[in-house]
Amino acid sequence: MDRSQLEKLLADVRAGDVSPADAANQLAQLPYADEAARAVIVDPHRELRTGVPELVYGASKTADQIAAALQALAKHNGGAVATRVDADKARAVKALVPDVVFHETARALTLGRTPKRPPCAPICIVCAGTSDLPVAEEAALVAEFLGAPVTRIADVGVAGLHRLLARLDDIRKTDVVIAVAGMEAALPSVLGGLVDRPMIAVPTSVGYGVSLDGLVALGALLSACAPGITVVNIDNGVGAAVAAVKIARLAVRP
Amino acid sequence: MDRSQLEKLLADVRAGDVSPADAANQLAQLPYADEAARAVIVDPHRELRTGVPELVYGASKTADQIAAALQALAKHNGGAVATRVDADKARAVKALVPDVVFHETARALTLGRTPKRPPCAPICIVCAGTSDLPVAEEAALVAEFLGAPVTRIADVGVAGLHRLLARLDDIRKTDVVIAVAGMEAALPSVLGGLVDRPMIAVPTSVGYGVSLDGLVALGALLSACAPGITVVNIDNGVGAAVAAVKIARLAVRP
Amino acid sequence: MDRSQLEKLLADVRAGDVSPADAANQLAQLPYADEAARAVIVDPHRELRTGVPELVYGASKTADQIAAALQALAKHNGGAVATRVDADKARAVKALVPDVVFHETARALTLGRTPKRPPCAPICIVCAGTSDLPVAEEAALVAEFLGAPVTRIADVGVAGLHRLLARLDDIRKTDVVIAVAGMEAALPSVLGGLVDRPMIAVPTSVGYGVSLDGLVALGALLSACAPGITVVNIDNGVGAAVAAVKIARLAVRP
Amino acid sequence: MDRSQLEKLLADVRAGDVSPADAANQLAQLPYADEAARAVIVDPHRELRTGVPELVYGASKTADQIAAALQALAKHNGGAVATRVDADKARAVKALVPDVVFHETARALTLGRTPKRPPCAPICIVCAGTSDLPVAEEAALVAEFLGAPVTRIADVGVAGLHRLLARLDDIRKTDVVIAVAGMEAALPSVLGGLVDRPMIAVPTSVGYGVSLDGLVALGALLSACAPGITVVNIDNGVGAAVAAVKIARLAVRP
Amino acid sequence: MDRSQLEKLLADVRAGDVSPADAANQLAQLPYADEAARAVIVDPHRELRTGVPELVYGASKTADQIAAALQALAKHNGGAVATRVDADKARAVKALVPDVVFHETARALTLGRTPKRPPCAPICIVCAGTSDLPVAEEAALVAEFLGAPVTRIADVGVAGLHRLLARLDDIRKTDVVIAVAGMEAALPSVLGGLVDRPMIAVPTSVGYGVSLDGLVALGALLSACAPGITVVNIDNGVGAAVAAVKIARLAVRP
Amino acid sequence: MDRSQLEKLLADVRAGDVSPADAANQLAQLPYADEAARAVIVDPHRELRTGVPELVYGASKTADQIAAALQALAKHNGGAVATRVDADKARAVKALVPDVVFHETARALTLGRTPKRPPCAPICIVCAGTSDLPVAEEAALVAEFLGAPVTRIADVGVAGLHRLLARLDDIRKTDVVIAVAGMEAALPSVLGGLVDRPMIAVPTSVGYGVSLDGLVALGALLSACAPGITVVNIDNGVGAAVAAVKIARLAVRP
Amino acid sequence: MDRSQLEKLLADVRAGDVSPADAANQLAQLPYADEAARAVIVDPHRELRTGVPELVYGASKTADQIAAALQALAKHNGGAVATRVDADKARAVKALVPDVVFHETARALTLGRTPKRPPCAPICIVCAGTSDLPVAEEAALVAEFLGAPVTRIADVGVAGLHRLLARLDDIRKTDVVIAVAGMEAALPSVLGGLVDRPMIAVPTSVGYGVSLDGLVALGALLSACAPGITVVNIDNGVGAAVAAVKIARLAVRP
Amino acid sequence: MDRSQLEKLLADVRAGDVSPADAANQLAQLPYADEAARAVIVDPHRELRTGVPELVYGASKTADQIAAALQALAKHNGGAVATRVDADKARAVKALVPDVVFHETARALTLGRTPKRPPCAPICIVCAGTSDLPVAEEAALVAEFLGAPVTRIADVGVAGLHRLLARLDDIRKTDVVIAVAGMEAALPSVLGGLVDRPMIAVPTSVGYGVSLDGLVALGALLSACAPGITVVNIDNGVGAAVAAVKIARLAVRP
Repeated sequence: MDRSQLEKLLADVRAGDVSPADAANQLAQLPYADEAARAVIVDPHRELRTGVPELVYGASKTADQIAAALQALAKHNGGAVATRVDADKARAVKALVPDVVFHETARALTLGRTPKRPPCAPICIVCAGTSDLPVAEEAALVAEFLGAPVTRIADVGVAGLHRLLARLDDIRKTDVVIAVAGMEAALPSVLGGLVDRPMIAVPTSVGYGVSLDGLVALGALLSACAPGITVVNIDNGVGAAVAAVKIARLAVRP
Repeated sequence: MDRSQLEKLLADVRAGDVSPADAANQLAQLPYADEAARAVIVDPHRELRTGVPELVYGASKTADQIAAALQALAKHNGGAVATRVDADKARAVKALVPDVVFHETARALTLGRTPKRPPCAPICIVCAGTSDLPVAEEAALVAEFLGAPVTRIADVGVAGLHRLLARLDDIRKTDVVIAVAGMEAALPSVLGGLVDRPMIAVPTSVGYGVSLDGLVALGALLSACAPGITVVNIDNGVGAAVAAVKIARLAVRP
Repeated sequence: MDRSQLEKLLADVRAGDVSPADAANQLAQLPYADEAARAVIVDPHRELRTGVPELVYGASKTADQIAAALQALAKHNGGAVATRVDADKARAVKALVPDVVFHETARALTLGRTPKRPPCAPICIVCAGTSDLPVAEEAALVAEFLGAPVTRIADVGVAGLHRLLARLDDIRKTDVVIAVAGMEAALPSVLGGLVDRPMIAVPTSVGYGVSLDGLVALGALLSACAPGITVVNIDNGVGAAVAAVKIARLAVRP
Repeated sequence: MDRSQLEKLLADVRAGDVSPADAANQLAQLPYADEAARAVIVDPHRELRTGVPELVYGASKTADQIAAALQALAKHNGGAVATRVDADKARAVKALVPDVVFHETARALTLGRTPKRPPCAPICIVCAGTSDLPVAEEAALVAEFLGAPVTRIADVGVAGLHRLLARLDDIRKTDVVIAVAGMEAALPSVLGGLVDRPMIAVPTSVGYGVSLDGLVALGALLSACAPGITVVNIDNGVGAAVAAVKIARLAVRP
Repeated sequence: MDRSQLEKLLADVRAGDVSPADAANQLAQLPYADEAARAVIVDPHRELRTGVPELVYGASKTADQIAAALQALAKHNGGAVATRVDADKARAVKALVPDVVFHETARALTLGRTPKRPPCAPICIVCAGTSDLPVAEEAALVAEFLGAPVTRIADVGVAGLHRLLARLDDIRKTDVVIAVAGMEAALPSVLGGLVDRPMIAVPTSVGYGVSLDGLVALGALLSACAPGITVVNIDNGVGAAVAAVKIARLAVRP
Repeated sequence: MDRSQLEKLLADVRAGDVSPADAANQLAQLPYADEAARAVIVDPHRELRTGVPELVYGASKTADQIAAALQALAKHNGGAVATRVDADKARAVKALVPDVVFHETARALTLGRTPKRPPCAPICIVCAGTSDLPVAEEAALVAEFLGAPVTRIADVGVAGLHRLLARLDDIRKTDVVIAVAGMEAALPSVLGGLVDRPMIAVPTSVGYGVSLDGLVALGALLSACAPGITVVNIDNGVGAAVAAVKIARLAVRP
Repeated sequence: MDRSQLEKLLADVRAGDVSPADAANQLAQLPYADEAARAVIVDPHRELRTGVPELVYGASKTADQIAAALQALAKHNGGAVATRVDADKARAVKALVPDVVFHETARALTLGRTPKRPPCAPICIVCAGTSDLPVAEEAALVAEFLGAPVTRIADVGVAGLHRLLARLDDIRKTDVVIAVAGMEAALPSVLGGLVDRPMIAVPTSVGYGVSLDGLVALGALLSACAPGITVVNIDNGVGAAVAAVKIARLAVRP
Repeated sequence: MDRSQLEKLLADVRAGDVSPADAANQLAQLPYADEAARAVIVDPHRELRTGVPELVYGASKTADQIAAALQALAKHNGGAVATRVDADKARAVKALVPDVVFHETARALTLGRTPKRPPCAPICIVCAGTSDLPVAEEAALVAEFLGAPVTRIADVGVAGLHRLLARLDDIRKTDVVIAVAGMEAALPSVLGGLVDRPMIAVPTSVGYGVSLDGLVALGALLSACAPGITVVNIDNGVGAAVAAVKIARLAVRP
């Protein structure tokens, strides 16, 4: 149940269309939809508290747990997303819940339709190399699920600066930038000196040797001398999308 | 020269009040105000490109370099800030430039008046312990210098949860939250589950032993399960303030 | 042979029911029950020295070694536990010793009945997410094997604080708390400010990127500002259970 | 205000000796004793919630802040402790508050008399080398401040095993053991195989080179194969003392 | 060709049994026995320079390369050893060279007979847990290949101190001690305080979580306060054996 | 004695101007000029072997040792350089050897005149911020001492891309580039995509928090996706200069 | 299109053989050859900017992406290389593009003929052990693809110093040295004191335990006291080859 | 009391020169010579158990504690050594105990005469740079105190290989080698391939940047491919000396 459903319910109560007792019953069901005997407890009214519904993190869950969580969340919210689901696990979930859709590049599953969301300014998601695409797509898919218009710009690494400069106008048409970058992660630094938008940087685990599975990219981003760049965990496309949407909603708040 | 000065100049040209040649001369001076024979090159039109003027990072500069940079920036912008200036270095700068003001808790120097800035929504800066105050104050001073109204909330660590809950209403009156936290850095996680504002977390180097000068706090913040929290470098109050202001300006954009 | 068996034997000797020679023979068998030709030497009188019998750590042992160790320990103690046994290895052990029982979530095998133990106060095992359940269940199973009544509370992460607050009364009905938490591991910090029980925190290897397989959770727990929290190794449910039982026995010592 | 003061107040109310209004006034003062204009907010009723009063962590506070915090806490509780205070800072605090007492080895300040505490079983504090004495003494002083009888055993490192074995009887006369050890930190492992008491291990930053300021000792303690040892942060005598007292109180609970 | 073969040849030359030209020819063949077209160049006269023949490190070699190296070395020296060979690779080598013998616990292959070696004093190899056996056996097999009499003592971890004390006499009958230990690696520290023999410690990668694949054991051993313990790389049974043999040969040098 | 002095000597021998015996005497003096009773052994004919004379690394030497080494080297070579000499130590050396010249920004001392060197193509030394100047100057001073013409370009960080682009032509007039960069160290990546010269990157220890004293900059440079960048140790201006000179000499080799 | 093709085109324009309009058309096609619908954008005129064509990094690409990239690059340049392609992926690419050639030791694919390159001085690639061969071969293959004559020298580790000394003359016949070394990586240090050529060191991930997948070799190389050695990422044969070729081209520049 | 004093006492008892009661009294005094009221407990009969007397580690002790320990040990043993004593602390000790002698390079204090020790074969201590001298001298001084003849060889780093080769004969005249090396620590690897003696390597904290205070040197030594090298902690000259003496005594054991 998101805020608009809640407001609808309360308006119905005020209008006399729903009795306080029935409303109470409906609200009483909210807190914990206990699915699958304690193993997966979804939190359907998280959206009410934080503006963002629960998203299923698939990596540490079994196909059974993902299926149960998606169904529980979709029942309450109209739609649900699970991320970090590889192709094998996706197949197993689909065998249990045939309606899920698998998004291969983003390594994500969706169930149901994206529910109506608050208005949101456009977000630009920029990435440096083809190896960063899965993380960029995860961010894009989640941002769109949360109601954001998304502009995708790929393969604009700093070793080919002209490509990046050629896309600056597209970037400036959006209000928030997510920059996805692995290896030395110089893209957000360069971009941070060229645009005045809030920018969220996502380090990726692309690379080898001293890249340390993304720790060097993370460190480089946090050390960037262009002030105002904020950072999320390595490969954390979901976190970047949620942060960007919260910001982009402010920009079109009535 | 910020954008409003530039637009004023161009309007004067259009109106015939300034000749194109004179305007060209003025603009020609912009790029590099070479101060102190190459050692300190300030970048006065950075505000034009990125929305935020250059801020002087004092830690790796001598008193001479800080004084020169503050004067150069204040001449162009009307006011300037230098951070990471300890009491001894502050005294040395004040001997060179008597007009600077030292902000002891924030470990910062200001020169001149804060110039007029774009409108900005209110920002809340929350910190967990008295040891985190210097970083929180650095963020507050820079945010105010950039034009943001700031609400300060101190000493609301999670080990005394009631203190934090008692201040939730104050936090919710602002549009962006900066959460400053050292040691196990649990504050932003808890807060992230209670408010729906964009939140920027600043780990601090407070702690000892396994705290590793803030690396554990940084790691904990990046690992936080409350999605949508973004993070800046350890003790980086300046970066958090710049990011928060960029977001808060969006919220009141006409 | 635990202390009560030993005291029984010595009482029998004093009462003349067992000859000193026979007692000597029985005691002589104690020290090293050499199983399987030197490869697995179990230590059956460890319980006498430390209050806790030997528990089989399955991860670095073959199915043969686990089977032999469980049988040797169960023969002397009446029951035995092996932890860190995955489903495949469990099957292999069961093929050798059909009486073993596999506990899937806890990834543990038990053989025989839990022997009578000293009295023990109740222990509460709290965990933050479904991903932490295996570690929490390992702790619960071992604590119960050692004679403790266990209260399980799952999915009370700090990002949904209301869930945790709703369970405080249940937690306060026990005398020792084991808090299992991965990622940023904020749960024990928050709980440590709310209850006055001894608390043992178990970091888990849940998470990705900068979580570093649990090292950040471990560091955060050790840095927690709520004093009095003690910590065990990452994913070490066994160690937490043993420590909690030693404490809980003190609480009901006659 | 600790629990006995609170119970006294409520008993007075019940007996009619104190009016509810006056009691309310007294209780209203509890929450935040704002000292020194926001900079140091002490939490005098923490003891009510967690069983342990606030202890002042001196390392990141100025002499002014320590003095103010000690006075505020001593006023409410009758006595107060500040730890991690070096000799120079101690002198500065003493100049402000002449009644403080400096404990040089423990690097701690006390003010006022230790208030009456709940009953507590005896605690043994064992350390391996003379270099570990400051941490052991910090633990001892805090444990005694919290009401515990303390047995100190020093210089029983495993490289001279006979010393340790000679003291086992003394250790077994207590109910909880704090083992302080730096370098390879083998003492708690050996002791853990010899006694059945709950044991809390404190790694110290003694050592050089690969000792990494105590990180190796910490890792060794967390990896110890003797189960049931729990660990606190490097050099964290305070945390070990608080944990030990919470356990030792259980052992003599009526 | 080892030193005794060389001395024999030179004696033959002196005696007139071998012409200088023929001797030169034989010696000329020594330097590089180029096997398998450059891919594996064995160094058969390494024994002459360093007292120890080349040992084949199997982990980073293919079955083909191991087979070629073993044959080349055995042809010159009479016998050869390859370590770090898992069961699958061992089978593949055996298919190529049916005479090789696989030593499963030691994960090693031998080919041919152990050649005659210089006299060598007895070596004791002590290990703490069954998980350390593969490393201990690798050391034992290599030491015996190099001519040392070896005493094996297993499962004498410090958590069961009586087991270790019971074997001290056996240890003291040897001249050099190799102590193999994982996890907290306390065994060599304790042993170092009890015996006066040169001791080489081998950390193992046994353990989990904060054990960091043996890095903590390594750090603990290097930090051990019992002076005179020297250390080799994690799991490096070969290195310990070679070092021990070099020492043990000194002890019986005529 | 460099190669030209050696060739001169041999030519003199051939010409009969120097007797073989005298030449032998001169050459015999070469190997080890034992200065100051074993403590400082300079290696004057290193230039003959490696093309580069010995440079004195001042950080771990006393003023006495630096003075002795400079004098010994200057006597043989005509000139000498010592790096990593802070102002205090420089004063102490100057008191011993008044002819030394202190270069404050480069933290270096020179003695005597730069001897004639092989021809060398021009080198460009680029740095990103004023904080990187000491390392850049160390590289410049050493490169000039070795005979290279040096172009210095400062303050061209990627956060102000226009500054860098404005200097591309100057950079392209040289044959080898040394890029000095701290923090996120993005400069060499960007530059590597714009110029085709061999480029040596020097990470600096500028920065704080997660910058880890230059380790992140080092990691970022080694991970840079622009291929062909090579890297030296953190702050190692000397190493970069020596490498650049070796390359630049190739470019003008007759 | 490489520089010679470009110069040819411009010469044709000057000569009147190609009209400016046609030339413009050809040049307009250069920037982005969009292959495979955005997923792989090759950069065919990178050679123009940086002197080196794009090389396909296969590790993070699918067989489809590698095939598309090789074809796109070969179409423009005449030939293309993909590195870090294991045998399975190579088979999959060959199924798509039968003309590719797989180089097993180098783990690389080539397509088409090596295009004509600028003249290049000879490069020597030296490696210490057979385990380092794959990295050395990757470097050799890329260097040859870029037009360099390559001398390969294998198995000259410092533990058998005579082998290395025997090859010094071969090394000195080349102008640039690439030294590939894992484990303690001492080879480049020793070589750096013996030859005066520019030397690029490549650490490899060979080793175990404390070798940390090549991080220790990397650290040792960067710490080498022989000045003038530069370093690339662990196992980065490509980077070393590109850097060496840029240098070697300078040596024969007309 | 060392073994010879003990044997003398027992011989006196046997001969009737000392009564058993008097002998018992003398022996009873042995175990713990409690000096300075618990703060410094020396272990005078450690030599009996381990062959080596207690050596005072000065770094973590006050001047008072060092003075007391030296006097207590010298009283029982005839002589004593304290290491890691800087010049200031040495002065303070000398003020308390004027008979101590300060060894500046070794940073050590000695008191009294070196007592008679068991026979010991010669030891060679080799170091690479002048910066390694303090560690080498610490090892030499302790080895001589324990009765070993010591050959010192300095400044034979691998960057100047000829110096090392020139000293091989001197090294081969000794029976045990201690190799002290910082930075990339290649010396022991090279030496390990040239001599057949037992070799103990001591990494030093010399270096900067990625040298990580000796951790890279330590890692390189443990990874060395020349088998049979054993390693002690960074800068641990004492440990290397004790290990070498234990070995060298074996070589001359009657």
